[in-house]
Amino acid sequence: MDTEEFRRHAHAFVDWMTDYLAEVERYPVRAQVKPGDVAARLPQTPPERGEPMEKIFADFTSVVLPGITHWQHPSFFAYFPANSSPPSVLAEMLTATLGAQCMLWQTSPAATELETRVLDWLRQMAGLPDGFTGVIQDSASSAILCALLTARERATGWRANDEGVNAVGPLKVYCSTETHSATEKGAKIAGLGMRNVRKIAVDDRFAMRPDALEAAIREDLAAGATPICVVASLGTTGVGAMDPLRPIGEACRRHGVWLHVDAAWAGSALILSEHRGLLDGIEHVDSFVFNPHKWLFTNFDCSAHYVRDPDALVRTLEILPAFLKTRERGHVTDYRDWSVQLGRRFRALKLWFVIRSYGVAELRRMVAAHIALAREAAEWIAAAPDFELMAPRSLALVNFRYHPAGLDDGAMLDRLNERLLEALNDSGELYLTQNRVHGAYAIRLAIGQTTTRRRHVEAAWEKIQTTARALPA
Amino acid sequence: MDTEEFRRHAHAFVDWMTDYLAEVERYPVRAQVKPGDVAARLPQTPPERGEPMEKIFADFTSVVLPGITHWQHPSFFAYFPANSSPPSVLAEMLTATLGAQCMLWQTSPAATELETRVLDWLRQMAGLPDGFTGVIQDSASSAILCALLTARERATGWRANDEGVNAVGPLKVYCSTETHSATEKGAKIAGLGMRNVRKIAVDDRFAMRPDALEAAIREDLAAGATPICVVASLGTTGVGAMDPLRPIGEACRRHGVWLHVDAAWAGSALILSEHRGLLDGIEHVDSFVFNPHKWLFTNFDCSAHYVRDPDALVRTLEILPAFLKTRERGHVTDYRDWSVQLGRRFRALKLWFVIRSYGVAELRRMVAAHIALAREAAEWIAAAPDFELMAPRSLALVNFRYHPAGLDDGAMLDRLNERLLEALNDSGELYLTQNRVHGAYAIRLAIGQTTTRRRHVEAAWEKIQTTARALPA
Repeated sequence: MDTEEFRRHAHAFVDWMTDYLAEVERYPVRAQVKPGDVAARLPQTPPERGEPMEKIFADFTSVVLPGITHWQHPSFFAYFPANSSPPSVLAEMLTATLGAQCMLWQTSPAATELETRVLDWLRQMAGLPDGFTGVIQDSASSAILCALLTARERATGWRANDEGVNAVGPLKVYCSTETHSATEKGAKIAGLGMRNVRKIAVDDRFAMRPDALEAAIREDLAAGATPICVVASLGTTGVGAMDPLRPIGEACRRHGVWLHVDAAWAGSALILSEHRGLLDGIEHVDSFVFNPHKWLFTNFDCSAHYVRDPDALVRTLEILPAFLKTRERGHVTDYRDWSVQLGRRFRALKLWFVIRSYGVAELRRMVAAHIALAREAAEWIAAAPDFELMAPRSLALVNFRYHPAGLDDGAMLDRLNERLLEALNDSGELYLTQNRVHGAYAIRLAIGQTTTRRRHVEAAWEKIQTTARALPA
Repeated sequence: MDTEEFRRHAHAFVDWMTDYLAEVERYPVRAQVKPGDVAARLPQTPPERGEPMEKIFADFTSVVLPGITHWQHPSFFAYFPANSSPPSVLAEMLTATLGAQCMLWQTSPAATELETRVLDWLRQMAGLPDGFTGVIQDSASSAILCALLTARERATGWRANDEGVNAVGPLKVYCSTETHSATEKGAKIAGLGMRNVRKIAVDDRFAMRPDALEAAIREDLAAGATPICVVASLGTTGVGAMDPLRPIGEACRRHGVWLHVDAAWAGSALILSEHRGLLDGIEHVDSFVFNPHKWLFTNFDCSAHYVRDPDALVRTLEILPAFLKTRERGHVTDYRDWSVQLGRRFRALKLWFVIRSYGVAELRRMVAAHIALAREAAEWIAAAPDFELMAPRSLALVNFRYHPAGLDDGAMLDRLNERLLEALNDSGELYLTQNRVHGAYAIRLAIGQTTTRRRHVEAAWEKIQTTARALPA
C-alpha cells in the first residue's frame, strides 16, 4: 500500500470511526456471539497474496464487529469503564503514525519530556503533593508489581535482586480482603508467595482496619518474617472501598514498611476537591497509581504511577547493556528503567491531548456528572421495595441485588440475581458485571462511560426492574 | 469535542499523517534537541479551560515533532527497527476507536478469537510446529519473564507461587554471555536473583556453547541448586548470534530444564524457508517469542509468544476474583491469565491487517530485501581498507568499526569510533547505535525499516566513510 492509497483508506476509516462514535448505541453492548462464532469465519491459513483493503475492512465490519463488546457504549456499566474520547483517539492516530519506541530519552526526547510534564500536570490535578514523580505504566497491575519489587529490594538492601528471594527469608505483604487480585498476582511474580500476602480484615464500609494491620505486622515480626509492603486501596474493584491512608501510613512508618496506594479507578475523582479528604495521610505514601484509561477519557493503556523515590525504582529494575548506553545518560530520564518492559509506546501524547482539549474544569464536570448519576441510581435502588443496595455507593459505583419479598434463601437469591444479570447482558441493551459482597451475589453498576447521560441510567434502571420482575421463579 | 468536530480534525490529521509517511526523510532521523529543550516549551500547569484542537495540533508540530526520533525514517539503522506500515496504522485507528479492553473472552470475543487465529497463521508462516499456542505480549521482555515464571513453577511444583522463592532454595537460569539483558531483568523480577543467572561462554560466532552449558548445569546440580530454565537466543541484540537449539535442547531435556527461545528480532526471518535450519531442535523448546513489531511491519507493541503448554502458563499467572468470573470460563480462552498485566489492548487487529494486506509472499520479499541489503553493506565494509567487520553479518545486522591503517591502540580506536557515531547521529542523516564486541567499541547497522531501499544504505555507507575520514585525529 503506497501512501496515497493509505490517504484514501484512512479518510474512509475516519468516516466510519466518526459514525461509529456517533452511533455506538445501535450496537448491543456486550457481544452477542457464542464461543467459536468468530473463529469459524476466519481462514485456517494466512493468504499467500495480498488482499485489497476494501475486502479486509469489509471483514472487519462483518466478522470482527459482531464479536466486539462495545466498551465505548453509553450503556456500558460493567467492570470499570475504559473510557476514551475523541481527542484521545486523535492522539492515538498520531502515535501510531510516528511509530516511535520511547524506551530511552534519545529514542524520543519529546515523548520522555512530555510524559514527565503531563504526569506532573495530572499530579497537580489530583492533589498529590510535590515530591511525587510520575511514569506511565500499562496498567495498575504493573504498578503494583513495581511497588512490590521496590519494597522487596528496599527491605533487603537490594539482596533479593542479587541473590534471590531464597537468600532473604519470608517477606510479608498486606492488603485488605477487598483488595484487587493484582496484589496476589504481583506477589506470585515477585517470588514472594501467595501465602505471604496477608488479607487484613475490613470494617463495615469494607475499608482496611488499621488495628488489624498493626496486629498482623507485629505477629509477623515476632515470627521472624519481614513485613515489606502494604497495598492500600482507594476504591476497591468490588465495592469501591476506601482504605484510610493516615492510620495505615502511620503503621507503615512505625515498621519501615512500603506503602503503595492502588487508586486505579477512584484516583480520577481526586480532581474534584470534595474528594481530596481521601488523601489524608498521603505524606506516608511511597507510591501511588491511578488509571486515566479508566475514568479520565484516555485510551487504554495509560496508567499514572507516582513514586516518591525514583532512584529506588530505577535501581530495582535497571539493567544496562552496552547497546543501550547513550551519551545523555545520567542527565536525562530513561523511562526504560522504570517499568517491567523495555519497549514503550508514546502514551503521554493522548493524555496531553485530553487534558488540553477539555481543560481541567470540564474534566471535573464530566467526572462529577458520573458521580451524580450514580447517586441518583443508588437512591432509586434503595427506594425500590424489591431491590437493595449491597454496599454503600462509592463515587460512581453501586452494588445491588434483586430481592423480592418473601425470598430469603441466600442460594436462591444468588441464583436469581445471576439469572437476572445474564438476562440483562443477553439483551444487549446494557452491560453489567457481578460481584460477591459478604459472600452474596451482587450486581455492579459502574457509571463512567464518556457519553453516558441520565437517559442511559434511567433506561438501565427501567430494564433492570422489568427484567427482574419478569423472571420466572 | 463532538463527533462532527472529531470528523473534521481526524480528516485533517489523516492528511498530515499521509504527508508525514511520504516525507519522513525530510526530518533528521535522531532528534536534534538537547535535554530540556522540549520541557522548556511546555507549561508548568494544566489549562483550566479547554483549548482548540488547532492550537494543540500546532504545538504537536512545533514543540513535540522536533523532539521526535523518527523510527519510521528509512535511514533508521539503530537498535532494531520498530517497523510499521500503512495497513498497521489503519488498524490502530480502528483499535483506538473501539477502545475495547480485551482481558476476557467476554469483554471482546472477536479480539480473543482473532488473536488465537492470527497467531496460528504466524506460527505457520515462521515454520513453528503444531503444538505451539500463541498469545500477544507487549514485548519479548515480558515473554521472557513469563517463561522464567512458568519454569520456576514447573520446577518447584507451583510451590514458589504459593510459599515464595524463599521456600525452595536457589534456582538457576542459563543464557549466553551475548543474551539480552531482559533475562537478568526477568530473574530479578521473578525473585531468582542476578547471581543465579549463569552466563554461558560462546563460540567464535558468539553462539552459546552446549558443552559449557552442560557443564554448568552439572556443576549446579552437584552443588544442590535447581536448574530451571535456559534462555537461548536466535539473533542476539549485539551481533545477532544464533544459539544452536538442538544440543541446547538435548541438554535441557536430559536435566528437565525449561527451554525458552528469544528470537525477538530474528524470528521474522523464519518466514524465509532458507533460514528454517535455525529451528533445528525446536521439538525440545517449551516457549518461543518473536516480535512482529520489530521486523514484520506491525506497530509496537506486538510480541508473538508461543507456548507448548498453555495450562502451565495460566496456572502460573491465574488469579480469579469474583468480578472476573464469566459463564464461558473453561470453554474459552481468557488471555488475561497469559500475561503479567490484566488489561489488554486489541493488538491482533493490526497483525491481521498487515498479513492480509501484504500477503505472505510479499512479506517474505520485504524481509529478504533487507537481508540482501545488509549482505551488500557488509561486503562494502569488508572491502574498505580502513573499515572492518567486528562480527560476521547476521541476517540484516552488521557490526563494524573504522580502523585506519597504523592506529592499533584499542582505547584510541574505541574513542575514534565513538566520535564517529556521534558525528553521524548528530548529522541527522542516519541513526546508528553502538555495541561492544570482545570488549571493543563497534557500530551496529541494523537494516529493517519498512521503506529502506538500496539508495538509503548507499548513502549511509558514503556518509560513514566521508565522516570517518574527515575526523580530526
